[in-house]
Amino acid sequence: MQATLAQLCETLKKHGMKPELEGDAGQNIHSVTTLEDAGEGQISFLSNPKYEKMLQQTRAAAVILKPDVPAPDHLNLIRVVDPYAALTVLIVKVHGYRQHRRVAPSPTCTHIVESAEIGENATIHPGASIDEDVVIGDNAIIYPGCYVGPRCRIGNDLLLYPNVVVYDDTIMGDRVTIHAGTVIGEDGLGYAPVGNKWIKIPQIGYVEIGDDVEIGASCTIDRATLGKTKIGSGTKFSNLIAVGHGTQIGENCLLVAQVGLAGSVNVGEHVTMAGQVGVVGHIRIGDNATLGAKAGVTNNVPDGETYLGAPAIPITEMKRQLVHIQRLPELKQQVKQLQKQIAALEARLSDEVEAK
Amino acid sequence: MQATLAQLCETLKKHGMKPELEGDAGQNIHSVTTLEDAGEGQISFLSNPKYEKMLQQTRAAAVILKPDVPAPDHLNLIRVVDPYAALTVLIVKVHGYRQHRRVAPSPTCTHIVESAEIGENATIHPGASIDEDVVIGDNAIIYPGCYVGPRCRIGNDLLLYPNVVVYDDTIMGDRVTIHAGTVIGEDGLGYAPVGNKWIKIPQIGYVEIGDDVEIGASCTIDRATLGKTKIGSGTKFSNLIAVGHGTQIGENCLLVAQVGLAGSVNVGEHVTMAGQVGVVGHIRIGDNATLGAKAGVTNNVPDGETYLGAPAIPITEMKRQLVHIQRLPELKQQVKQLQKQIAALEARLSDEVEAK
Amino acid sequence: MQATLAQLCETLKKHGMKPELEGDAGQNIHSVTTLEDAGEGQISFLSNPKYEKMLQQTRAAAVILKPDVPAPDHLNLIRVVDPYAALTVLIVKVHGYRQHRRVAPSPTCTHIVESAEIGENATIHPGASIDEDVVIGDNAIIYPGCYVGPRCRIGNDLLLYPNVVVYDDTIMGDRVTIHAGTVIGEDGLGYAPVGNKWIKIPQIGYVEIGDDVEIGASCTIDRATLGKTKIGSGTKFSNLIAVGHGTQIGENCLLVAQVGLAGSVNVGEHVTMAGQVGVVGHIRIGDNATLGAKAGVTNNVPDGETYLGAPAIPITEMKRQLVHIQRLPELKQQVKQLQKQIAALEARLSDEVEAK
Repeated sequence: MQATLAQLCETLKKHGMKPELEGDAGQNIHSVTTLEDAGEGQISFLSNPKYEKMLQQTRAAAVILKPDVPAPDHLNLIRVVDPYAALTVLIVKVHGYRQHRRVAPSPTCTHIVESAEIGENATIHPGASIDEDVVIGDNAIIYPGCYVGPRCRIGNDLLLYPNVVVYDDTIMGDRVTIHAGTVIGEDGLGYAPVGNKWIKIPQIGYVEIGDDVEIGASCTIDRATLGKTKIGSGTKFSNLIAVGHGTQIGENCLLVAQVGLAGSVNVGEHVTMAGQVGVVGHIRIGDNATLGAKAGVTNNVPDGETYLGAPAIPITEMKRQLVHIQRLPELKQQVKQLQKQIAALEARLSDEVEAK
Repeated sequence: MQATLAQLCETLKKHGMKPELEGDAGQNIHSVTTLEDAGEGQISFLSNPKYEKMLQQTRAAAVILKPDVPAPDHLNLIRVVDPYAALTVLIVKVHGYRQHRRVAPSPTCTHIVESAEIGENATIHPGASIDEDVVIGDNAIIYPGCYVGPRCRIGNDLLLYPNVVVYDDTIMGDRVTIHAGTVIGEDGLGYAPVGNKWIKIPQIGYVEIGDDVEIGASCTIDRATLGKTKIGSGTKFSNLIAVGHGTQIGENCLLVAQVGLAGSVNVGEHVTMAGQVGVVGHIRIGDNATLGAKAGVTNNVPDGETYLGAPAIPITEMKRQLVHIQRLPELKQQVKQLQKQIAALEARLSDEVEAK
Repeated sequence: MQATLAQLCETLKKHGMKPELEGDAGQNIHSVTTLEDAGEGQISFLSNPKYEKMLQQTRAAAVILKPDVPAPDHLNLIRVVDPYAALTVLIVKVHGYRQHRRVAPSPTCTHIVESAEIGENATIHPGASIDEDVVIGDNAIIYPGCYVGPRCRIGNDLLLYPNVVVYDDTIMGDRVTIHAGTVIGEDGLGYAPVGNKWIKIPQIGYVEIGDDVEIGASCTIDRATLGKTKIGSGTKFSNLIAVGHGTQIGENCLLVAQVGLAGSVNVGEHVTMAGQVGVVGHIRIGDNATLGAKAGVTNNVPDGETYLGAPAIPITEMKRQLVHIQRLPELKQQVKQLQKQIAALEARLSDEVEAK
């Protein structure tokens, strides 16, 4: 949607911001992009001072930036305290969210078992399969190659990108989005040892996903052995994340790519896990905790704490530990020096004793 | 399948256990679940003493627990030495394994090339593709979106969940189960450097999977450059595991999520790898070895050893190393103290010399 | 393709090698395989001296090996300075690259939207979907279960293995190969915090992939929030790799399995990343840099450097650090010894003072 800079400022004001416009208020904007790529009719932003010199070269029609940052005279500017927040508002205003083509089910290639109930206004693409006794709410968009297993119960406004697989008995709330290739509800690694062999334990639990959850691409979320694996409302996942059986994740968490949670982990609300974090089974990650990239978490993490390292410890301790490790050569040198001094002292003392 | 507590005890006895029933032997049980979720007609279990207090609140119709654990009088109990082992037997008894809907191939949407031979009693769902000269045994269940490439040879009782991809020339034994989205037999990272560029080396090997193997969701198992990549009989994989070209894994191994093995690794029998382990190429992991979570294994691991850390070393050494690292501030303090003492000694000695 | 040893030597000469043939020049070779698996009519190679004893047992019809390595008299040999390089040439000569079955689109099950333009000589398998306004060049091979989203623009000689998903607006050059289950262009983890919740930022950028790129199985490459995520020409990926939004990777890089790059990383040319490497956002990895397995990279890496560890540092420093850590018990022992010596010195000094 095209809009003038004046109109964009109005939008920001409605979001509680106080934009100051410098330059041509009537300038038309048709899209948002990076300082580097921007050209005619495009607005961009500068948030990180590291990139300030790019203001000199940009061909953007306007730039969003902080009140005190110097900029070339010819540039149209929207000055706000938090340019990135303003940017996100304007992306929604100018571009909106992805539109999805609506299609009628193909008589030959959309495989919806008769006992499935699908709400109004659904788009089930050819090549998708909906199995027995599934219930899905209104406005579902299900792309090709998706499979929804028996007895799943899913709310309104479901969005499944291509090739998502949802195993039997999964429960989802409203406004759930799952990106391509993700698998929900597969069996966990549940085997009983009998001699040297592993005998499969039927995994009779299920997965429950709350409202407003978005899961990235190619994640795997195990069903529980008994009871449920749970992803709380408002939680967002990046890609290639593994969640073990029976793990329960609270609301509004943010998990970065390649995180792995073992089974029966209990994760609080609003927890952040950076990339490649691993968490062992049967522990608790407290509300508002943060786990740094590649952390290997082996013990409970208290509410609000930031842990780092493998095994993970509070970040301040880990940083101190790293400094100590970096200074090991120095420490070794000091010990060597002490050894010399002591040898010298011992020799002097012996000399004196002899001298007497 | 519904059964009385008396009948369940009979089942446990047939498995060599010695259950003692306390309470109503005629109580009907229709399902198994967690202490927390259990209600009317449901049996649960308690194994970990940490959760003993949950016995007070559970509404389970019966609980499996150890002989000596106190429990409220009103609870029906099955007491056994190993409640978890008993549980797994009763899950199989009461619930059995997942049932699969049988369907006839769709004339329009099940793509089976004429030269493929598929055994009796198969269910190939619409949206699955079977390529040239494939041979599959009896009782196969192949879900939508699966692809089986040219010349694959697969035994009886194959179970492919949706969207599994099996590249050309893969060999599998009997009773192989592969979860959704897993890819078997893709080309490995095989390139020859020519100047600054990478020239592809045709990957002309294949993957061989033994009997009774179960592979989790979204794993990737490279075909060999030459010869084969091998997964031994009885081995079980969790999700998002990467196996490099030419790696050979023995029988009855257990690999947890996000493990990565480079190429030409030789893994023995009954090896356990915890989550996010990485193993470099061309080394040997001995029989019955265990690799701890996030281990980065760069050298051979002897039979029966447990390795931890990156680079991985025997777990006892790693634990000692961690203690030494944690005590670095203390060590540094001691060195400082020594420096002071020596300075004092040197001063005293000089004073005395002067005094003479 | 069958060839005699004499003919194979001719091929090697055309590639600038100087093979010396020992034995039967007329021996026919029909395939290449490992020393272990080789039999009648098969050629193998020996490069790693560790496996020299296998020359005694091999039943290969011929072996490629270095000039100075002893071998049994009965073996036909092609001696070259670099047996592995010769091997790769002969694999291409004898086996060539994978052949793909050509099929006509299925009238019912190949879902090509009318506005899509696909070049000549394409094979789009049944069960693949091509969405609106897609443009694909000549000779495309698209396997079942693939989905190519609206407005993608792709060059010639595209090869998509089964179940690849390409989101809207992706751009690809010529000769791009993508292995099964990989997802290109999904939304990155882009949310704005509003109170305790996460509000989705539309991801309006795209992914651009250069010429001659090969991506392994089950990778995920986020589209940019703004602008583009880029994979440079000639770059090769293994499996289960995650690339964050806005990250730009140069030409001719090699990324091993399970590597994860956060957003807005800038990777130079000809960079090598070993397995399970993680790189934080907004940093630069210089040209020809190498990141060791499991490295956790948190700072810029200069051109040509090799970094290791988490946090990653230059490999020589990391190795020194590891040695210091391994010698901590020794250092602690030395400090203890010093404490004793000083106590003894102090005692002696006090005795002498008293003695006066």
